[in-house]
Amino acid sequence: MTATPKTLDDRWSVLANDLFAQIRSISTLGIGVTRPSYGENETQAMKVIEGVALEHGLHCQWDDASNLWISLTQANAGPAVVIGSHMDSVPEGGNYDGLAGVLAGLLVLLQFKAEGVWPAHPVKVLALRGEESAWFGKAYVGSLALTGQLSCADLQLKHRETGQTLQEAMQNLNIPIQKVQGGQPLVDLQSISAYLELHIEQGPAMVARHWPVSPVTGIRGNIRHNRIRCLGETGHSGAVPRWLRKDAVLAVAELLSRLDEHWRVLQQMGLDLVMTCGILSTNARSHAVSVIPGEVEFSFEVRSQNAETLEQFYQLMRNECEQIAQGRGVRFEFDRKLFTRPAVMDPVWINKLLQACIAQGIDTETMPSGAGHDAAVFANLGIPSGMLFIRNDRGSHNPNEAMEIEDFMLGVNVLKSALL
Amino acid sequence: MTATPKTLDDRWSVLANDLFAQIRSISTLGIGVTRPSYGENETQAMKVIEGVALEHGLHCQWDDASNLWISLTQANAGPAVVIGSHMDSVPEGGNYDGLAGVLAGLLVLLQFKAEGVWPAHPVKVLALRGEESAWFGKAYVGSLALTGQLSCADLQLKHRETGQTLQEAMQNLNIPIQKVQGGQPLVDLQSISAYLELHIEQGPAMVARHWPVSPVTGIRGNIRHNRIRCLGETGHSGAVPRWLRKDAVLAVAELLSRLDEHWRVLQQMGLDLVMTCGILSTNARSHAVSVIPGEVEFSFEVRSQNAETLEQFYQLMRNECEQIAQGRGVRFEFDRKLFTRPAVMDPVWINKLLQACIAQGIDTETMPSGAGHDAAVFANLGIPSGMLFIRNDRGSHNPNEAMEIEDFMLGVNVLKSALL
Repeated sequence: MTATPKTLDDRWSVLANDLFAQIRSISTLGIGVTRPSYGENETQAMKVIEGVALEHGLHCQWDDASNLWISLTQANAGPAVVIGSHMDSVPEGGNYDGLAGVLAGLLVLLQFKAEGVWPAHPVKVLALRGEESAWFGKAYVGSLALTGQLSCADLQLKHRETGQTLQEAMQNLNIPIQKVQGGQPLVDLQSISAYLELHIEQGPAMVARHWPVSPVTGIRGNIRHNRIRCLGETGHSGAVPRWLRKDAVLAVAELLSRLDEHWRVLQQMGLDLVMTCGILSTNARSHAVSVIPGEVEFSFEVRSQNAETLEQFYQLMRNECEQIAQGRGVRFEFDRKLFTRPAVMDPVWINKLLQACIAQGIDTETMPSGAGHDAAVFANLGIPSGMLFIRNDRGSHNPNEAMEIEDFMLGVNVLKSALL
Repeated sequence: MTATPKTLDDRWSVLANDLFAQIRSISTLGIGVTRPSYGENETQAMKVIEGVALEHGLHCQWDDASNLWISLTQANAGPAVVIGSHMDSVPEGGNYDGLAGVLAGLLVLLQFKAEGVWPAHPVKVLALRGEESAWFGKAYVGSLALTGQLSCADLQLKHRETGQTLQEAMQNLNIPIQKVQGGQPLVDLQSISAYLELHIEQGPAMVARHWPVSPVTGIRGNIRHNRIRCLGETGHSGAVPRWLRKDAVLAVAELLSRLDEHWRVLQQMGLDLVMTCGILSTNARSHAVSVIPGEVEFSFEVRSQNAETLEQFYQLMRNECEQIAQGRGVRFEFDRKLFTRPAVMDPVWINKLLQACIAQGIDTETMPSGAGHDAAVFANLGIPSGMLFIRNDRGSHNPNEAMEIEDFMLGVNVLKSALL
């Protein structure tokens, strides 16, 4: 483990630890943390952040999408560098995914104030809502709403558990729906000169390479279906012969096995690609051990740094579905195809962050992000964006994520240096 | 369609239609009929049968496993031919699967009584509970309890929806558990000279061959696991590279695809075999579109008329699991292996039923049963058993089963003739 650097005051890491613990305790239902997008736990976590900010004399403001902005003063002295990340988590996820970036921003502001050292441009912290697609099947909801990119169709997406629409969840938070769906940014985008995001790495690369922090070069995009239905025909599992069966489970198993093999080959050919079927289920109301399954629902996701690769693999999936439908007498029904563009980080900021690492004596290199982040939304609007990854063992989107507070504080220091 | 035979009185088919309709109306929750094993709807349906029997002056008695026996008189004049079937249904199943056999027995008794024609030996009707494995993961519960073959482990099996154990469900019906789990038959098996069962065909063969009724030669056995768990490792769907993934969905998809291919080949080699994975699901509490699935649960069933084929295919499945576990870094956990022996019907009764068909001018042949039936329990105890299938379109274990009442009445008449 990297030793705590001498340049950082211990009290900041104590504060960080306290805040992580406090927010964890209000976000857990037993296993990991659960902060649903536009939900109660997310709001409560944001109020903890707001409370600490106010206590330290910072200025807080909620925008019309109910994201929280924190700044040193109320006055707007020209375009600001925004340090942002998200407050929600996946179901039974980890505490650091998202929250670490918001706390990092807050600590940067608190240190500026405490040390009386101010950067040339204003700096703001942005605690975003609804980045995780796990709840409404749509990623980046808070940043898309903020930047006027949330569609009416998005607002009708349903919560995975409550069935409540995103619009209803927003209305419960008194969010003015007319403004959010108006297609206009809720803040003047010209007032954001850059967007920076600190985030735990969600894969195992940095642990393997002993990099405590790492500037990010770009972010994978993705194509998704939250729900594909394969419809065959139910029947008695003993009495219907093989040639008369329309077994939806065996059809989907064949589809996934074929795609898995295509993925293996395409990756060997050098394409950047990952494929996931995270949700898969027979119809829980009517399935049984002794019934040929007539219905399977599943999700599909492909990610790549290359938009063309995404579309090509997607078409391959659709072609395989057609072939399997013909061969097995089943049919596939698709919900809305969701596309998230890949994004590249700003070379100037990549370099600033890397130089700040080098200045601190940190042994690291830049790396791409396999996961999506709100930074992609800002980058794709032409706002110069940068990201800093923090080493994190055992992945994310699970309760076992294991960021070390020393690595986190190194990241805070790198952000701070890059801003000055 | 076969015309209604002139020899049958219309009032019996009117009564049959009325009883099917009445019991359907108390067994539906919207889609199809739902009569859970050892549940309220099953009991209510049995009480309707009991009411009609008492109304017509027949004698009724409930045994210690809460199965219902109906006879012409209370007196026991030597060993009886028992006409039985089951009262439960799968979730959202059809109305005729099971119920048709009980009503056929009842109509046979009513006709004997009305016509004053008595067979040489006593005849009893047996309305069994809990034949469908869909509820507690165990088939033939009523007939196994009756014949002293229900184990303590069976009694601890849990209801698929309520989580209640079979023992608790039985206790709710005031069934004396000590007697049921005692390993002793609840009636003297010597008092059952033969067991006959009329049942709808659960496959499409008879419709294809234009046979309204058909004597059954034997019944497929099966090996099952109600729940196999595949455990991998959850992780972020964008950030974990292919080589570090332990994806439980892709592991199970590969397993099922391999087994599907083995099945295809073995069947071409002439083996009698069907394989079904009726239940399949990622962990609904924690799965998400953007999470690599770390856990999949699924059921496995293989059926064959040959006990050796069953065991060989089962071992093949276990071997494939081992290989896939090694290759993909997942592991498989198996619940109790359940085995149901194949059974052969009694040649004397097969012939009696076939001769009765011929005497009625019915064009038919004998056929094996792909599905399991309570008759297998009695046959495997050495009780001479016979079964008669009734043509039924669109399969069973689904709401669309479509038996014609004319075919059913033909079956009643065949049963009656075979008894005389």
